[in-house]
Amino acid sequence: MHSLAEPVSKLIDAFSKLPGIGPKTASRLVYFLLRNDESIATTLAQALQELKANTLFCNICHNIADRNPCTICTNSQRDHSIICVVQEPLDVQAIERTRAFNGVYHVLHGAISPMEGKGPDDLKIAQLIKRLQQGNPAPDSGDASIPVKEILLATNPNLEGDATAMYIARLAKPLGVRVTRLAHGLPVGGDLEYADDITLGRALSGRSEL
Amino acid sequence: MHSLAEPVSKLIDAFSKLPGIGPKTASRLVYFLLRNDESIATTLAQALQELKANTLFCNICHNIADRNPCTICTNSQRDHSIICVVQEPLDVQAIERTRAFNGVYHVLHGAISPMEGKGPDDLKIAQLIKRLQQGNPAPDSGDASIPVKEILLATNPNLEGDATAMYIARLAKPLGVRVTRLAHGLPVGGDLEYADDITLGRALSGRSEL
Repeated sequence: MHSLAEPVSKLIDAFSKLPGIGPKTASRLVYFLLRNDESIATTLAQALQELKANTLFCNICHNIADRNPCTICTNSQRDHSIICVVQEPLDVQAIERTRAFNGVYHVLHGAISPMEGKGPDDLKIAQLIKRLQQGNPAPDSGDASIPVKEILLATNPNLEGDATAMYIARLAKPLGVRVTRLAHGLPVGGDLEYADDITLGRALSGRSEL
Repeated sequence: MHSLAEPVSKLIDAFSKLPGIGPKTASRLVYFLLRNDESIATTLAQALQELKANTLFCNICHNIADRNPCTICTNSQRDHSIICVVQEPLDVQAIERTRAFNGVYHVLHGAISPMEGKGPDDLKIAQLIKRLQQGNPAPDSGDASIPVKEILLATNPNLEGDATAMYIARLAKPLGVRVTRLAHGLPVGGDLEYADDITLGRALSGRSEL
């Protein structure tokens, strides 16, 4: 096989490092960029370079942001007495899209997973407990703080996520904070026939009055 | 929904411009880059910037290359008397991967398609006819040229590709060049039951002696 032009094979390699992009998709992307206007490639290159340079982590919620504290933590329209605890920044986006939550967030950056050698100290759990003890900084005034009434544990509904939620619940309950978890049940638009046993069991035990 | 950090949403937008990448895949890519080492993003950015800057088109075969003439056109190990005519640079790669072809290439950069307003003049057809008339430049010596004995039309097996092949065949035959087309038939590993009627019909009419 003849060697590809070097800039082409270098870009194919770089694209292949991304998740879900194999060498075939990568070469299709490269030839798309070659065929099209140069601006698409340069805009992408610029955005890539600015990504890490211009983002930081919010000191309060540990979400990715362009300022510190982030726009959610400084928004006086939101309810700072309820904290939604999630594993990843992407989860914040998912919950924001529902428009069903108006509190603030806390991003753990992972879940407790002995398999991956991740313990509670590798997550932002100590920072969360500190927020529960000291209250959230009020968005308007400088020194005042708003006591946290509830934490909603929105970690993933799997082994690691459940273990992390249990661990945090055990630490938070003695502090007098209401601890809640996302409901399990049938997905909307789903089909009873295709639901797995555990989900269906949770949907039964969590049934609600109509 | 709260506004994402600006560098994040900018990169999501830039990724979404690529074919086959929607906003959800794009945001997954961005958070992958944020979670991982910065070098992945910077390598990709550099490769993107070098792509157009360091590639050019070979003056003989019009393939994308890093030098002119390209490594295939200057390779004295290859048979310069047979030209494989393809639509896109990606097709050259596909044929090279088979290791079943040792001639040289000619990239048309498209196919005749009245629907897209693409006529023969928008393709590199005139340049191909010139190669047939004048012969391929010999890879070793300066002025000598190797007469072209055969062109293998490897345009896509669809309406546009077939029309382009027919058009080129009509121009090439009076020049005394052997004109061939890729065989149609059942894909290897395929299932007779699932083959479409036209492919099966072509496989029947193109049957070969065992």
